[in-house]
Amino acid sequence: MVKFSNSISYITLGVDSLERSLAFYRDGLGLATKGIFGEEFNNGAVVFFDFQPGLKLALWPRKSISEECGVPLGTPDSAGFMLAHNVANEAAVDAIVQQVINAGATIVRPAKSFGWGGYGAVFQDPDGHLWEVVWNPHDSA
Amino acid sequence: MVKFSNSISYITLGVDSLERSLAFYRDGLGLATKGIFGEEFNNGAVVFFDFQPGLKLALWPRKSISEECGVPLGTPDSAGFMLAHNVANEAAVDAIVQQVINAGATIVRPAKSFGWGGYGAVFQDPDGHLWEVVWNPHDSA
Repeated sequence: MVKFSNSISYITLGVDSLERSLAFYRDGLGLATKGIFGEEFNNGAVVFFDFQPGLKLALWPRKSISEECGVPLGTPDSAGFMLAHNVANEAAVDAIVQQVINAGATIVRPAKSFGWGGYGAVFQDPDGHLWEVVWNPHDSA
Repeated sequence: MVKFSNSISYITLGVDSLERSLAFYRDGLGLATKGIFGEEFNNGAVVFFDFQPGLKLALWPRKSISEECGVPLGTPDSAGFMLAHNVANEAAVDAIVQQVINAGATIVRPAKSFGWGGYGAVFQDPDGHLWEVVWNPHDSA
């Protein structure tokens, strides 16, 4: 019998405006994408970005998630989840913080050192989704 | 200058009860973990699960995310994001749907075929986070 296993293929972010989020992730963060497609289908419009092998990030309207998945269209909640983007050193954290500020992100936790030895910052995308940019010295190869 | 790149190291889910979510993911879904640790630090208690190489899933209290990241502790919102667990065929979707029902998950979209050729279902974890279990024939190797 097949059971649930430790694999995640897609992370889908619910967004209020595909155009606004596409501009932030493609033009601001510099991620490659084919842009918006699937608009000919009801709730089909979506944007994909390739991340590491086997993992894609998707942008899909909150309204589409609500309708297709049968959940209420509530109020966006930033404390519900966070994605982490690990980098190689403290200078990389600082450089990316400047990049995301230029892209229009809101910095909710400025870059600082942690008690466990790392260094990081947290920003919000246009829908309030949290991204941590972090250097973890214990992850060094 | 270092720039943001297409890499996600951690997906952190905000939860109301670490114990309840640990039971769901470890005992119900069968994912391996060392359990809760870091409780000796303020907002330190966390649970990690290894997913594919380079990707971990973390469970962290919503209150900790709110306090550590400087965002309001709002109302959980299921339309904000979704994780997808892709499987090899339709029977695997059905088997995992039964497994997550037994684990106490809520099925918000029963398994069905999609117009694009796939087959899938969507369930909610104890905090309402969405997981899609899906077979995508276009992903077949």
